[in-house]
Amino acid sequence: MSELRQNPMTKEWVIMAADRAKRPNEFGHVHKKHERKVHDELCPFCPGNEHMTPPEVVRIPATEGEGWKLRIVPNKFPALFPECFPAWTIQRTLRSVKGSGAHEVIIESPDHSLCGALLPFENLITVLRTYRERFKQLSENPHIAHVTIFKNHGAGAGTSLEHPHSQVIASPVVSSPLRARFYEAMRHWDEFGECVFCQTLRDELDEDKRIVFNGHEFVAFEPFAARSPFLTHIFPRRHMASFGDVRDSELEELAGVLHNTLWKMHSGLNDPDFNYTIMTAPHHESGTRHYHWYLEIVPRLSEVAGFELGSGTFINTVLPEDAAEFLRKVKIAQTHFANEFAGVV
Amino acid sequence: MSELRQNPMTKEWVIMAADRAKRPNEFGHVHKKHERKVHDELCPFCPGNEHMTPPEVVRIPATEGEGWKLRIVPNKFPALFPECFPAWTIQRTLRSVKGSGAHEVIIESPDHSLCGALLPFENLITVLRTYRERFKQLSENPHIAHVTIFKNHGAGAGTSLEHPHSQVIASPVVSSPLRARFYEAMRHWDEFGECVFCQTLRDELDEDKRIVFNGHEFVAFEPFAARSPFLTHIFPRRHMASFGDVRDSELEELAGVLHNTLWKMHSGLNDPDFNYTIMTAPHHESGTRHYHWYLEIVPRLSEVAGFELGSGTFINTVLPEDAAEFLRKVKIAQTHFANEFAGVV
Repeated sequence: MSELRQNPMTKEWVIMAADRAKRPNEFGHVHKKHERKVHDELCPFCPGNEHMTPPEVVRIPATEGEGWKLRIVPNKFPALFPECFPAWTIQRTLRSVKGSGAHEVIIESPDHSLCGALLPFENLITVLRTYRERFKQLSENPHIAHVTIFKNHGAGAGTSLEHPHSQVIASPVVSSPLRARFYEAMRHWDEFGECVFCQTLRDELDEDKRIVFNGHEFVAFEPFAARSPFLTHIFPRRHMASFGDVRDSELEELAGVLHNTLWKMHSGLNDPDFNYTIMTAPHHESGTRHYHWYLEIVPRLSEVAGFELGSGTFINTVLPEDAAEFLRKVKIAQTHFANEFAGVV
Repeated sequence: MSELRQNPMTKEWVIMAADRAKRPNEFGHVHKKHERKVHDELCPFCPGNEHMTPPEVVRIPATEGEGWKLRIVPNKFPALFPECFPAWTIQRTLRSVKGSGAHEVIIESPDHSLCGALLPFENLITVLRTYRERFKQLSENPHIAHVTIFKNHGAGAGTSLEHPHSQVIASPVVSSPLRARFYEAMRHWDEFGECVFCQTLRDELDEDKRIVFNGHEFVAFEPFAARSPFLTHIFPRRHMASFGDVRDSELEELAGVLHNTLWKMHSGLNDPDFNYTIMTAPHHESGTRHYHWYLEIVPRLSEVAGFELGSGTFINTVLPEDAAEFLRKVKIAQTHFANEFAGVV
């Protein structure tokens, strides 16, 4: 038998089809990656090839020597443009806005090989701090309605560039799924007097079946109505609608939890393609009590087919309980993880 | 520069990134398919292997001889189950329904090789009539809220079985994206006194830039805010909320328009993987004046990446105007199309 579960934040229904299920450990054999080079002379993100990208907008110098630790450059083929004014055109049902905004690439390290889960913890702290700073800078533009920070790892997750990088897109509109989520959260507050995200986190902690990592500031868990196998949420315990409000001390723990989770997926699921995204409130509603930012990791282990496209309902073949148990059991054995999570998991 | 466009039916925003664009004719080189067999002795949908599927629920006998023209069988690994009662459980944010419903496979032909666009026109009429009849039968179950009919063609579209088939899933819930679309359509009626789908169709016909096929009863077009390359809508001209209300004469023209469109994609885009779905009203709102059923075809020519997953906004690299012009120019030259569309395109 199967079960439909409803995501309390989006009101999405997901079919948990246990009888169609692969066992979690069957996923480990799907992907097989090649050896990675530390430097690739054809890679536009490698040191020495800085001229292959548009002029950088942010550079964090290396701790030692002349090089850099991290760069932000405009996307060479941007989807949205800073120099463009967001003029709105409404002609009956044909509605459009000029492509104003920003589309940037965050090059996370000079080392070409440190992609996916391999970026060291210290670099990840720098990356997360950069996310927050750039998020705040881009949000200052009065035309920006929402900033999305995301990472694509692997061809199945939509990137052809291997060098460790993430992206930022600042948009002049609020998307309809984000607005729907925001509206549902508002309704939930009006009905229950509580942030639906805070309540979800408490319910997950109470149930204690889908927790992957239970930290002081952040909790990683497989949500009850996860729409795809091993989809993972990392929630801050403290209520904040906007990612821009996260504190330095919190970012350090987030780096640890994210590192840990990505490494468990890398090791347990054999370096799957994945995306992660920071889900945050629309910029102009950043102080609200009913929305709550979080980070979502989506390993790309399943295909979206006609049913999902047509019905808007997803079929998940791995129960989140099983996925959480599987991830909890994956051992962290890398030397660069030494003492990082001592006693926390 | 780029442009954001809003889908009037869903209120989704799509970024039309012309500067990132591939030219439409570049898509023709992406996929390359192998020779197809007429019969595959390992295929569970081929004649002689009927014992490999669960017992059939519908059989349309062959016009000549002892065989069959079409079969409907329960999915061997169903997502939802007819024998299950849809009990609802609400525990704070953890909400679920038992997996009640139906999940069936429509085997469209005994000929293994007629997949995708290759199914002859006459078979497609039979398939569409079967869709409608099965839709009506499943809708009689009082526990069913929505019926989705869809087709997956190719591994990139979520199927590993080559034999021509489509699927039906009858669900006890209305998905949140469908409900959102339904609500927007209701709001549109309340504001404009007109069905948003009827108005969109008229606006597309007035603009006459994105029409692929302009028939007496159906219009195929690339929607103004198409979220992926070559995403195509086929709208009935007559207002109907439910696919169950389509007439025999209309189904015949729909078969022609669908056949034509799929063939143009097959020929012009080199047999792309694709999904199509019949988008229809929730069953209990089938008579409404504000919703309108249609058929959506999604060739799988682009990847969904972190931005789309996180923001709910899509980036489309092919302008619908260019896609429509490209498809209009693809010649229909197959012998089994002889006279079928004479003088219509």
